[in-house]
Amino acid sequence: MKNLNFSSLKKLEIILDGEHKNFVTDLLDRAGVKGYTIVNNLSGKGAHGFHQGHLMFNEDDVLIMIIAAVPEDLVEPILEGLGPFYSEHSGVVFVSDIQVTRAVKFSN
Amino acid sequence: MKNLNFSSLKKLEIILDGEHKNFVTDLLDRAGVKGYTIVNNLSGKGAHGFHQGHLMFNEDDVLIMIIAAVPEDLVEPILEGLGPFYSEHSGVVFVSDIQVTRAVKFSN
Amino acid sequence: MKNLNFSSLKKLEIILDGEHKNFVTDLLDRAGVKGYTIVNNLSGKGAHGFHQGHLMFNEDDVLIMIIAAVPEDLVEPILEGLGPFYSEHSGVVFVSDIQVTRAVKFSN
Repeated sequence: MKNLNFSSLKKLEIILDGEHKNFVTDLLDRAGVKGYTIVNNLSGKGAHGFHQGHLMFNEDDVLIMIIAAVPEDLVEPILEGLGPFYSEHSGVVFVSDIQVTRAVKFSN
Repeated sequence: MKNLNFSSLKKLEIILDGEHKNFVTDLLDRAGVKGYTIVNNLSGKGAHGFHQGHLMFNEDDVLIMIIAAVPEDLVEPILEGLGPFYSEHSGVVFVSDIQVTRAVKFSN
Repeated sequence: MKNLNFSSLKKLEIILDGEHKNFVTDLLDRAGVKGYTIVNNLSGKGAHGFHQGHLMFNEDDVLIMIIAAVPEDLVEPILEGLGPFYSEHSGVVFVSDIQVTRAVKFSN
């Protein structure tokens, strides 16, 4: 892969109840995240949540997944910002490695 | 990333015809998977299936993707459990590395 | 993971306006990609696009994500093929590492 300039970023997959979407997108905006994509109308079950021993989601819940590609140095502040939220609400955040071209679009 | 405790897990993305959802979620439950998230109403085409030479999915099929984060030692038993299913039905499973915080939620 | 044969592939997650779906799926077909899965009805915002300084997506746009698992040597030709498209249209491509079993299904 010589001809294209690949840059390494972190992908955040933030799963939560859709009614709290704006809390998360506002947090991403304030953190300087340049964009995100939302998968709507997910269903889920069980402990894809943080309250141990609770049933977090019922299959009828309307979950969403907010996908954002961010520079590595934004991962920790975003997750710290989400911490109090996930102490009270169900959901989960997956962090993984991705590569993109034209990474200029993802950082300030 | 010093302040948050990240744990490495494996993400399973299990794509199959939605009519067989319960077979897979029952298998995940029995394997001790704590939760999963389902993306509904996917479409697909071609050999995202295992019967070589067949057209596996038509674009009209109603596919789903079941996303589960599991400890690495559950990957093999789950995929072995899915083996006979995928010998008869179309679909695919992607395995990738993710990190999560509060990993206690994902293991027994 | 001894009993299953895992093979490493690259996962492409191609996000674009759904009205241009056929351009991308035709390109994948010509590149020899054996199958793909499409997540419909995404929403998005901001610079998950390449025109710096533009607002790329409005939340009302109907975005799709085309997911394809490909051998590593197909990544560069596909991304080069998509380059002129993304010079004129909004969207983004994420590249990541995945493992699959029965990799024979993914290559020519």
